[in-house]
Amino acid sequence: MKRTEFASWPCSIARSVDLLGDWWTPLVLREAFLGVRRFDDMQRSLGIGRNVLTQRLKRLVDEGMLDRVLYQEKPDRYEYVLTDKGRDFYPVLAAMIAWGDQWLSGEEGPPIVLRHKACGHDMSAKVVCSECGEPIQARDVRARLGPGYPPDTPPPGPRVERA
Amino acid sequence: MKRTEFASWPCSIARSVDLLGDWWTPLVLREAFLGVRRFDDMQRSLGIGRNVLTQRLKRLVDEGMLDRVLYQEKPDRYEYVLTDKGRDFYPVLAAMIAWGDQWLSGEEGPPIVLRHKACGHDMSAKVVCSECGEPIQARDVRARLGPGYPPDTPPPGPRVERA
Repeated sequence: MKRTEFASWPCSIARSVDLLGDWWTPLVLREAFLGVRRFDDMQRSLGIGRNVLTQRLKRLVDEGMLDRVLYQEKPDRYEYVLTDKGRDFYPVLAAMIAWGDQWLSGEEGPPIVLRHKACGHDMSAKVVCSECGEPIQARDVRARLGPGYPPDTPPPGPRVERA
Repeated sequence: MKRTEFASWPCSIARSVDLLGDWWTPLVLREAFLGVRRFDDMQRSLGIGRNVLTQRLKRLVDEGMLDRVLYQEKPDRYEYVLTDKGRDFYPVLAAMIAWGDQWLSGEEGPPIVLRHKACGHDMSAKVVCSECGEPIQARDVRARLGPGYPPDTPPPGPRVERA
């Protein structure tokens, strides 16, 4: 079954989701952020099929999220290292972790605790406005068509204003 | 093909990804945030198959992200309205939009522009530390096993410390 091509939609959510590709990809990225760089280690840690992991890593390399770096010759062996684009995705995962910790954890609490080394405190991600620094809530945000929205295409919802 | 059960993993990313379910679900949530509440409107706006949309909406209702609300009787008609849990997911989408706007937009710029009504400025989401308010970068965050991590389970990566 061919899946829908979200990459060409005028929507940064659709494009991101297309790149993530499937359920495994955010977890492959998690491994990269947790310092796992080698195929066998990722495979063991995730319990993922080798074919699936190969595909997901190839996609992430093709999309410029990971670099494939030779770390040993004869036989050639490669590590997977986050690029700037890949590293920049961390805040999205951090926001997802904060939401999951709050809404999907049991009474025992979150499975993983994050400490912000920069300030020395246990923390969770907070998503704020780039301009005023206040936390973002859906009801405080208005969307309008931007310069990258194709002309003559209907807006994605009734509350989206034309530019 | 039965897919992997991520919901039971001790990982808020895996649990969130399990709930999102597939590529369509974040876009169904996008519609809800854009003020689209009715099945036919979502179906038209997304160009999604009716069966698929029915399944995704049912999952989101079952998981407590959306409420199914009767708005007309004889014939009965329902709207889908975000719950607190669903509304609270907006920051995750906002972080995803910010990343996609930066890394997946063409030269023409982002497809959608967000304005923060609270402060009156066009904005993007910024993910910061709940404690010190500084932007979060992966290299500044250390992960350790939390109270919800099952004992006798290996940590998900070499840099994750035991509690």
